[in-house]
Amino acid sequence: MEQLEYQEGRTELDALGKYGLIERITDGFERHHESTVKGPGDDCAVLGTGKTKTLVSSQTLAEGVHFDMMYTPLKHLGYKAAAVALSNIAAMNGQARQLLMNLAVSNRYSVEAIDELYSGVRLCCERYDVDLAGGGITSSRSGMVITATAIGEAEEGMIAYRNGAKLHDLVCVSGDLGSAYSGLLVLEREKVTYQANPNFQPDLASYDYVLERFLKPEPRLDIVKQLERLGVVPSAMIDLSEGLAAGVIQLCRASGCGCEVYEERLPIDYQTTRVCSEMSNNMLPVSNALNGGGDYELLFTIGQKDYEKVKGMEGVSIIGHITDEGMPAVMVTPQNSTITLVAQGFRS
Amino acid sequence: MEQLEYQEGRTELDALGKYGLIERITDGFERHHESTVKGPGDDCAVLGTGKTKTLVSSQTLAEGVHFDMMYTPLKHLGYKAAAVALSNIAAMNGQARQLLMNLAVSNRYSVEAIDELYSGVRLCCERYDVDLAGGGITSSRSGMVITATAIGEAEEGMIAYRNGAKLHDLVCVSGDLGSAYSGLLVLEREKVTYQANPNFQPDLASYDYVLERFLKPEPRLDIVKQLERLGVVPSAMIDLSEGLAAGVIQLCRASGCGCEVYEERLPIDYQTTRVCSEMSNNMLPVSNALNGGGDYELLFTIGQKDYEKVKGMEGVSIIGHITDEGMPAVMVTPQNSTITLVAQGFRS
Repeated sequence: MEQLEYQEGRTELDALGKYGLIERITDGFERHHESTVKGPGDDCAVLGTGKTKTLVSSQTLAEGVHFDMMYTPLKHLGYKAAAVALSNIAAMNGQARQLLMNLAVSNRYSVEAIDELYSGVRLCCERYDVDLAGGGITSSRSGMVITATAIGEAEEGMIAYRNGAKLHDLVCVSGDLGSAYSGLLVLEREKVTYQANPNFQPDLASYDYVLERFLKPEPRLDIVKQLERLGVVPSAMIDLSEGLAAGVIQLCRASGCGCEVYEERLPIDYQTTRVCSEMSNNMLPVSNALNGGGDYELLFTIGQKDYEKVKGMEGVSIIGHITDEGMPAVMVTPQNSTITLVAQGFRS
Repeated sequence: MEQLEYQEGRTELDALGKYGLIERITDGFERHHESTVKGPGDDCAVLGTGKTKTLVSSQTLAEGVHFDMMYTPLKHLGYKAAAVALSNIAAMNGQARQLLMNLAVSNRYSVEAIDELYSGVRLCCERYDVDLAGGGITSSRSGMVITATAIGEAEEGMIAYRNGAKLHDLVCVSGDLGSAYSGLLVLEREKVTYQANPNFQPDLASYDYVLERFLKPEPRLDIVKQLERLGVVPSAMIDLSEGLAAGVIQLCRASGCGCEVYEERLPIDYQTTRVCSEMSNNMLPVSNALNGGGDYELLFTIGQKDYEKVKGMEGVSIIGHITDEGMPAVMVTPQNSTITLVAQGFRS
C-alpha cells in the first residue's frame, strides 16, 4: 500500500502550461502505423491510408470546471458537449459524420435528467447531420463528466492543420469574440445574487445573445461549407476554445511564424461590450476577446490570393497577417503600439 | 435560475439497468450517413463505406468507481485505461490501430504523476502495436476521470457483432473467469487492514496473478490473431467487462437466442478459488466467474463446423452452446440443474 502522490521533485501541472504538458506526455510515443497521418498536437487525429481521411477528436467537459449545474440546463449541456467535439472537426476543415457520447454520472441524476441531456445531444446531431454512433454511461462518485468523441472526414488536400501558415498569409476569424465569456460573467453574477436571496428572479432576457453563446455554442461547420463553395482551403486553422490569444499563439507556434492582429479589427458584439461596462473592474471588451474562452469560433489563415474570395464572406473578419519566423504574435492597438500576446496556463 | 434535479416522476438510474438506459437514450436518433454501418449497441461503432471498416469505441474509468488511488499504481492505471478501450476492438474481432487519451485531473496530481500514468499508456500501446493519436488533459474539481478512445479496423466479413449467434453454435471464452474480481477482493481486504494499522505491510506476493488481472488486464487481441490464423470468424463476440452472466445475457439478447453454459466447463484459476476460500462469507468461485467484472476476456460463439479448429486453441474454453429463440440463458450445474442467469443493474 502506498499513497500515490509524489512529493519529491514535484512539478505542479500549472508549471508547464496545458500545451507544454501535452507535448511532454506524448513525447516518446512511437508511430507504428502508416494510417496514423497526424497524431497528437492538432485539433483532430488524422487517420487512414486512402485519399479520404478520417478525423477523430475527443473532448471532455467536467462539472465544476466547464459547467455549473446551478445555471446549466441539461439540454444545453448535451448540446454543448456535442458541439465542442464537432468544433474540432470544423477546425480541421472537415465534415462531421458521427459522435460517441461517454457520460460519467452519479445517481443523483434521474433517468429523466439523462433524457433531457440527450435531447440536447440529439438536437445538435440533427442540426449538423451527425449520427450518434456509440458511447456509454458509467457511474461517477462525484460530479458529471462528459466526453464526446467526434468523427469526421476530409479529402487529403482539404485538411487544414495548425502548422501551415505562411509569411504574409491573412489571419481570419469567424463570428465574434468574447461573447461566450461575457455570458459566463453574467451567469456568475446572477448566481451570487441568487445565493444571497433565493427569491430573486433575474431578468436575463437582455443578455440572450451572450448567454446562448456560452451555454450553447455552435461548431462552425457552416464556415467549412462556405469555404468549400468558395474554393478556399485555409493554410492553417484552429478553433478558439480558450480565447483568441491562446489560439493565435498555438497556430503561430505550430507554423513557426509570428503574427500581427489589429485590435480595431476584432469582431466584438455590443452585448459583450455592455456586459464589460457593467462589471465593476473596468473590464475591457478586448480582454474578453483575447482571453475569454468558449467561443468555438474558427481562427484561420489564407493565402493573399484568396483575399477577394474571403473578404465578402458573411460572418468572417480579416483581423491581421502572418509575420516572419522568429517574430512574436502581437496585437497592434489603435494607437499603433504592439502588445505581445501571452498564452494562458493550465486552467481548463 | 433553477435547480436541475427532477423530482416529479423521477426514475432512478438503477431502475432501467445500464443497458436499458443506453437503449432508451439512443432511441430516437436517426442515421444520416451510409458510413454509419453500426451505431450504438455493440462494443464498437462500425464506420466507413469501403471494404475495410473503421472501429471506434470510447471507455471511461472514474476514480472511486473503477479504481481506488489507495492501491492503484498510476502506471497500471494508464495501462488499464488503454487496455479496456482496446478490448472493445478485440470484441469486434478487429485489429487495434490508434488510441486517444482524455484525462480530467485535479491539481493534486503533479506532472510526475501524469508522466507515470502515461508510461503505462505507452507500455500498452507498444505491446499492442497501437499509436497514441490524440486526446487531452483538462481540470477536474474532484476525482480523476479517464476516457480512452480506441480505433481499429477490420475487413467487412471479419467483424463479429453481438447479434450473430445461431442455434447450436458453441459458446467459447478466453482465459479464466473471476480472477480480476478476486484481485479486487484482496486489495479491498488489505486496504481495510492498512487503514486500521498503517504500519501493516501486506504480503501480496502469493496473490500476484489475481492482482495483476485486476490492476492490469490485457485486451485479448492475441485471440483475434489466433482466430484469424485458424480461419475462424466468430458468429458473435463480446468482451467480459462485468462478468460472464452479463456478457452471456447481452449476447443472447442481441442474437435473439438462449444459451446453456456448463458450470464444470468454466475456466477458474486456483488463485481465484483460494481467494474465495479465504473470504468469510462462503463465496463460491463460480459466483466470481459469473458476476465479477474486470476480466476483459472474450466471450464468443462459433459454428459447429469450426469445432475442430477451436478445440485445440490455447487459452480458449468451450463452455456451452446456443439454444433456441425464446429459451433463457442458463448455467447447468454438475448436478444437472439449471440456473437462469440474471443481468446486473447499473453498477459501474
